[in-house]
Amino acid sequence: MTTLITGGTVVNATGRTRADVLIDGETIAALVAPGSTALGHDLAASAERVIDATGRYVIPGGVDVHTHMELPFGGTAASDTFETGTTAAAWGGTTTIVDFAVQRTGERVQDGLAAWHEKAAGNCAIDYGFHQILGGVDEDALKAMDELVSEGVTSFKLFMAYPGVFYSTDDQILLAMQRARDNGATIMMHAENGPAIDALVAQHLARGETSPYFHGVSRPWQLEEEATHRAIMLADLTGAPLYVVHVSAKQAIAQIAAARSRGLNVFGETCPQYLYLSLEEQLGAPGFEGAKWVCSTPLRSREEGHQDDLWRALRTNEAQVVSTDHCPFCLKDQKELGLGNFSKIPNGIGGVEHRMDLLYQGVVDGKISLERWVEICCTTPARMFGLHGTKGVLAPGADADVVVYDPAGHTSIGYGKTHHMNMDHSAWEGFEIDGHVDTVLSRGQVVIDGGQFHGRAGHGRFLRRGLSQYLV
Amino acid sequence: MTTLITGGTVVNATGRTRADVLIDGETIAALVAPGSTALGHDLAASAERVIDATGRYVIPGGVDVHTHMELPFGGTAASDTFETGTTAAAWGGTTTIVDFAVQRTGERVQDGLAAWHEKAAGNCAIDYGFHQILGGVDEDALKAMDELVSEGVTSFKLFMAYPGVFYSTDDQILLAMQRARDNGATIMMHAENGPAIDALVAQHLARGETSPYFHGVSRPWQLEEEATHRAIMLADLTGAPLYVVHVSAKQAIAQIAAARSRGLNVFGETCPQYLYLSLEEQLGAPGFEGAKWVCSTPLRSREEGHQDDLWRALRTNEAQVVSTDHCPFCLKDQKELGLGNFSKIPNGIGGVEHRMDLLYQGVVDGKISLERWVEICCTTPARMFGLHGTKGVLAPGADADVVVYDPAGHTSIGYGKTHHMNMDHSAWEGFEIDGHVDTVLSRGQVVIDGGQFHGRAGHGRFLRRGLSQYLV
Amino acid sequence: MTTLITGGTVVNATGRTRADVLIDGETIAALVAPGSTALGHDLAASAERVIDATGRYVIPGGVDVHTHMELPFGGTAASDTFETGTTAAAWGGTTTIVDFAVQRTGERVQDGLAAWHEKAAGNCAIDYGFHQILGGVDEDALKAMDELVSEGVTSFKLFMAYPGVFYSTDDQILLAMQRARDNGATIMMHAENGPAIDALVAQHLARGETSPYFHGVSRPWQLEEEATHRAIMLADLTGAPLYVVHVSAKQAIAQIAAARSRGLNVFGETCPQYLYLSLEEQLGAPGFEGAKWVCSTPLRSREEGHQDDLWRALRTNEAQVVSTDHCPFCLKDQKELGLGNFSKIPNGIGGVEHRMDLLYQGVVDGKISLERWVEICCTTPARMFGLHGTKGVLAPGADADVVVYDPAGHTSIGYGKTHHMNMDHSAWEGFEIDGHVDTVLSRGQVVIDGGQFHGRAGHGRFLRRGLSQYLV
Amino acid sequence: MTTLITGGTVVNATGRTRADVLIDGETIAALVAPGSTALGHDLAASAERVIDATGRYVIPGGVDVHTHMELPFGGTAASDTFETGTTAAAWGGTTTIVDFAVQRTGERVQDGLAAWHEKAAGNCAIDYGFHQILGGVDEDALKAMDELVSEGVTSFKLFMAYPGVFYSTDDQILLAMQRARDNGATIMMHAENGPAIDALVAQHLARGETSPYFHGVSRPWQLEEEATHRAIMLADLTGAPLYVVHVSAKQAIAQIAAARSRGLNVFGETCPQYLYLSLEEQLGAPGFEGAKWVCSTPLRSREEGHQDDLWRALRTNEAQVVSTDHCPFCLKDQKELGLGNFSKIPNGIGGVEHRMDLLYQGVVDGKISLERWVEICCTTPARMFGLHGTKGVLAPGADADVVVYDPAGHTSIGYGKTHHMNMDHSAWEGFEIDGHVDTVLSRGQVVIDGGQFHGRAGHGRFLRRGLSQYLV
Repeated sequence: MTTLITGGTVVNATGRTRADVLIDGETIAALVAPGSTALGHDLAASAERVIDATGRYVIPGGVDVHTHMELPFGGTAASDTFETGTTAAAWGGTTTIVDFAVQRTGERVQDGLAAWHEKAAGNCAIDYGFHQILGGVDEDALKAMDELVSEGVTSFKLFMAYPGVFYSTDDQILLAMQRARDNGATIMMHAENGPAIDALVAQHLARGETSPYFHGVSRPWQLEEEATHRAIMLADLTGAPLYVVHVSAKQAIAQIAAARSRGLNVFGETCPQYLYLSLEEQLGAPGFEGAKWVCSTPLRSREEGHQDDLWRALRTNEAQVVSTDHCPFCLKDQKELGLGNFSKIPNGIGGVEHRMDLLYQGVVDGKISLERWVEICCTTPARMFGLHGTKGVLAPGADADVVVYDPAGHTSIGYGKTHHMNMDHSAWEGFEIDGHVDTVLSRGQVVIDGGQFHGRAGHGRFLRRGLSQYLV
Repeated sequence: MTTLITGGTVVNATGRTRADVLIDGETIAALVAPGSTALGHDLAASAERVIDATGRYVIPGGVDVHTHMELPFGGTAASDTFETGTTAAAWGGTTTIVDFAVQRTGERVQDGLAAWHEKAAGNCAIDYGFHQILGGVDEDALKAMDELVSEGVTSFKLFMAYPGVFYSTDDQILLAMQRARDNGATIMMHAENGPAIDALVAQHLARGETSPYFHGVSRPWQLEEEATHRAIMLADLTGAPLYVVHVSAKQAIAQIAAARSRGLNVFGETCPQYLYLSLEEQLGAPGFEGAKWVCSTPLRSREEGHQDDLWRALRTNEAQVVSTDHCPFCLKDQKELGLGNFSKIPNGIGGVEHRMDLLYQGVVDGKISLERWVEICCTTPARMFGLHGTKGVLAPGADADVVVYDPAGHTSIGYGKTHHMNMDHSAWEGFEIDGHVDTVLSRGQVVIDGGQFHGRAGHGRFLRRGLSQYLV
Repeated sequence: MTTLITGGTVVNATGRTRADVLIDGETIAALVAPGSTALGHDLAASAERVIDATGRYVIPGGVDVHTHMELPFGGTAASDTFETGTTAAAWGGTTTIVDFAVQRTGERVQDGLAAWHEKAAGNCAIDYGFHQILGGVDEDALKAMDELVSEGVTSFKLFMAYPGVFYSTDDQILLAMQRARDNGATIMMHAENGPAIDALVAQHLARGETSPYFHGVSRPWQLEEEATHRAIMLADLTGAPLYVVHVSAKQAIAQIAAARSRGLNVFGETCPQYLYLSLEEQLGAPGFEGAKWVCSTPLRSREEGHQDDLWRALRTNEAQVVSTDHCPFCLKDQKELGLGNFSKIPNGIGGVEHRMDLLYQGVVDGKISLERWVEICCTTPARMFGLHGTKGVLAPGADADVVVYDPAGHTSIGYGKTHHMNMDHSAWEGFEIDGHVDTVLSRGQVVIDGGQFHGRAGHGRFLRRGLSQYLV
Repeated sequence: MTTLITGGTVVNATGRTRADVLIDGETIAALVAPGSTALGHDLAASAERVIDATGRYVIPGGVDVHTHMELPFGGTAASDTFETGTTAAAWGGTTTIVDFAVQRTGERVQDGLAAWHEKAAGNCAIDYGFHQILGGVDEDALKAMDELVSEGVTSFKLFMAYPGVFYSTDDQILLAMQRARDNGATIMMHAENGPAIDALVAQHLARGETSPYFHGVSRPWQLEEEATHRAIMLADLTGAPLYVVHVSAKQAIAQIAAARSRGLNVFGETCPQYLYLSLEEQLGAPGFEGAKWVCSTPLRSREEGHQDDLWRALRTNEAQVVSTDHCPFCLKDQKELGLGNFSKIPNGIGGVEHRMDLLYQGVVDGKISLERWVEICCTTPARMFGLHGTKGVLAPGADADVVVYDPAGHTSIGYGKTHHMNMDHSAWEGFEIDGHVDTVLSRGQVVIDGGQFHGRAGHGRFLRRGLSQYLV
């Protein structure tokens, strides 16, 4: 089957151009100058399907490299299955996710990965890959890293937070980084000083400071900045590439920027929640409402200027990727586990559906350029995690993951509105976006069009990823 | 006429992919996945000309945004005419230059531009644009800036060096920057503290230190760093975009990096000579030989580490563009004007022919990635100076400026070897490159192929440039 | 005559101690532990005069190294004569000033100095020295620098502002710095980019923005930071010690801090007005009242945080000295010259009388320690300008310039209150200080005591200063 | 008994002056201008003892705030007893030490302190104080901190290295810092990432890299810089004052400098070994000889420039104190424990005797000023640890700890030469100093004079220290 997307403005990371996109089955066959006669015949006439993108942007499908579908956490599990979560992603113009398989302490790494394969296989509406969380770095785990790289799982996440759960000691981090240096994998880091945070949490609870607001207060920026710097120095020492996830503190960004300026392969990701939401406004909402926005790293103080600085960092390439850290929990029965004790609130915000829109609003607001939107939401995440040529770019040979985005459209985010995630509320209630995802193709299949979902669970395939393409 | 470049690896700034390039007349009609049947017929069979790029890179033609053909300087003139210079450029895989029209103090800006149009028109083998040098910022010149922007001359160069020749005072710079902020033009800056340099030059000459080596010594890095910082602060104050030309000192790069991190539209260019050559080795050559490498900013000390740091800056995007500052002078009768007085040596090095090769060697040496090579030599210079969509990228609708580059080829640089510039020596004598420019197309015309020049003077057209595409 | 100051707490820069101060004629003969019998007899009984300092601090007399008595400026002259100004200084606990002799362009340096000697000789109530302003660096002036150093005028002030008046070009600065490097003198710099400021001033006036507020707006921090950095780089290049006067912008402090961290002999002075007053509150006062606070560098925005940062810099030794830049003008007939044109308002604030009190308030407010107060107001200015051993310290052999300061006292600053300067208003009206200058001795003579002035014009002597004692 | 030190140049931290020092019993009674008649009689005639210091410097006795007499370590104990160690200190012009009492994990803090009191009492030739090492921060230890502060032990040392021995986790550090913020104590930190180091050590040993050189290699600067930054961020978060001991890496100094510039109460100490000795020359000595210089932090690479940078930092006050970290071990039976396994070599270098001389050589070499020598070796360590007014300064009321230092003298350091420490070798063999400690007084008693030791064990008293006098 051939499809022609015609009349639109193709936007890639380095520029925009008027071009038609010819799709042959699952891949892009050609980008063609509109009206060119050099092909010798009329493409629109010969294509089996023609999508009119006049007046609209044609962009690569979004690549969200940080999601947690069905993640067990704190006695419950993230409320989106791979089916509901990837369907919501498609609604929002995201056609690739990279989720996290989990090794718990004491488990074999391979068993953890196998479990996640089982959860996802046959259930995804869009393509998916896996990072591997290492919950217990030992000799077996180190060997498993090599094995997983050969199977297309080329990035490993470690935690400097959550002692007793996912926490790695500095020597474990060192060993994993040495292995990554050798096999080319990327180390992803949750960079917060967990032991110090746990001490502060205990002090807050002892003082009766139990509301969601104190989740934020007990995780001060100093402990994110500290851990970020520590991870960087271990990366410097070992030579491993380092990708710091969900950066929310401007001081952590400054550490990443300094490392990058020295030429280190250090990268920073932020998320929409850190760009728009704050400690004062959301976590500090009356009563228990702040629980909706309990996630780690936490939302930061607007007064201290973190939000503005993160936008600046996205412009200046001190941050390279925007992901969602999608980890949804319902209020009822889930977030409510932490009534009277913020430390029991499951950590996570649902957002896989809204990233492309929320960041496009940044284009409208003059915070980033149109090309930069594509770069941080599609192209760079794909390159970062070994998917370039396949995902994140509109080019011949790439997977035909395409979004037709209407800058004249409008999107009202909220529960009962655009919301398709399996949650009983929206963390983004009331956000109004000056743009709209009109049509979404995943590997040549139309999955969203005309306000309807046309995809299916099981369409999405597992992506065997290569090494990061940002390493020389 | 249609041309198909087939079998190669297309390299753009954000990635490489196997694709065929279909050219329709002067522009790129399509990028096509090899072997795709979606087009409905055999492109290779229908194309009027087929270029086999098997095993080779297919890249956008080089964009050199800093050349000085026929520039009058110090009582003589740069030895390349627009014809010889653009022909040499084509030999080296560069298909666009942006040269500098000159307003001398007391002249009308428009007259200066007209003179340069006259020199170039009908003489160029490849496309060309103009920046405008302002040698006397006054009310008329400020008005002329608006006029020139509307004529496609959208960047203006000022000098903080050369008092009495091109020198602008800080208030003149301020006024020109304010105008640029208003009309969107880019201010290009030769950033060296001219008055201080002139005082040092006089002291050296008074001490009998007259050899070419003292050209370098009399222009210490402190005076480049200082002027760079000064230009940045004036840009900060006015809001004008600033592009610092021919950065050679690592401390100047640090100033640019700091400004960029603050979110300013500040950019830095370096040149091959600053990446490879040094004060000790070249300027310090015995006798008068160092005169070959007298240029400003000067070659810097290798021991101080400037060369290594510039490569680092190219990797980290603290420098964005590599140009040549091509300004050739023969030794005989030209450089020799400064026998016995280094300050009389015409300033300039010829290199328009070798930039693509010299930077490709950086890829081979592991200093930059293949994609970054294309980015800093083609894509970014085009975007920086308002040529995106037309130049610097392989995409439908772009001008068919294409280079087939052979990574298995070899290039011996030197006078009597690959040299085609109108000089009696080569500044790059003896450099051996692990790659080779095989075929060059300019707007669909093969100008270099099979070791022959197939182009002609007059093929090149004047480019009306838009505003910089790096400004949000 | 012998005097014993007994019962107080002697405060020096590195600590405080209970000690009696024995004065023999004009110098300090001994510091003695209270009650010691080792001297073999009762000092209090044998001293000809005993001053009881019980419960009070005994500190070195203040050293104000930046005053402009009788300075001709803008068609008028600073309203304090050496007699009125030094008397006011004494009232405020300052026992040494270093004023500025002026060479105007076209004059001989020596003639300028001679003129100032004439103004001061026989008229000063306290000791005084001179810096020399160079208004025209040429071969004669450079030679004069050596001569003046031998006469105890060991510091030379240059201006990067005020084109056509005091302004030096960068090559002039370079030459003067080279000379200072050779003869050991210190270069003092008024660091603002004068040409750029003059362009902005003209634009404001052309727009009818003529009120005192626009004095501040037309001298933005960027132009102070720029000039500060430029001066530093010229100092780096030449090796001259550099002392930047009246720093008001936090960004300028950052430049000084960076230079100091590199090990350069670069120093920064600020003034009470920059610590307490602001663009918004004082310069922006209704009508013409802001004229009282027109000085250059200007008062800075409180919102931007310059005041807080300068206090921080005083704590961290990124700024080393607090002087007054005392340059008083009356409103009537003087400041009023600029009615309708802020650029005609004579630049200057009177404050020589209040520096010790205003900075002591910083001790009370917890911004600096008691010892640091003495260090930045007495000890460091004396060391900085070659007076150590004589001034700024309570030690045997030093001049007996001593202040008894009462931390339990109170001082109400204002016209008709403590004010003794020859002005028709106070720039510090309404400031209330939690401390009081009780007694002041100048070279052993009580000049202030019991709320009375006991000194006399002509008591003060010219100080032949040595080289800065901060240079290794 | 009264003593007069006459004819010398008294050097304090802020300047030098000609003065006689009158001592009454154990304290300084007066500093007197030579020849003054104001005292009414001839001091030299009335003094019971007169020491002629003509042509020599009279300085405060040295204050070494980092020694480890009799420290149990690695199955042996530091070879100097309090008697031998303090006697050696006196020989070298040091009249105060602050040693470290040790709490081992599982012990009561108070018991550890009591044990050290027992070791020292009656055995010291000079005055001594104690810091307290906390080897196990728990609720009891936190309470003990308050108690010790009231007993004059006002500083607590934690270790980020040595897991299983002295190591504290980050939450323990946080808790101890909170307590220090509340009770005013200073936290001293051994800043190296112990877990990471232990992993590297195991790898080296596994590869058969067992010689002393690998002690240095296994403790790379990244792990010192990292821990230094981590300690700073915890201090920032808690508000505790932080003193980083034995800084050897220039990057760690940079972290301290950045913290200080932000206004934090963060301080850095270095030691003579880091200023003079190196990884290449000493640790890399042939065979097992490098064991003499096994200490932690380790000697750093000279090629990387740490030594030069530490001298710069002492000049710029980015480092404030020079101590010795005196921890001597004999080669025989002690250092030899690590034959074939560098990790078994007891960590430590003996140097308490040579600090004043080694740093004076820095004055001769132009690296620091004479006043700065006194400041970093005497005045600042005393102020830093609550001894100002008593130690580290020549002022009335201070303890009469005085050194007469001869700049025309000479000192040959080495075993069998000036060496008095209880070791079978000298880490400083062959160092030649252009100066000499002639006479040393401890609380008015001559303990060194004429090349003889005149002191006695038991003369030294325990010093109840106050809080750091560097905190506002």
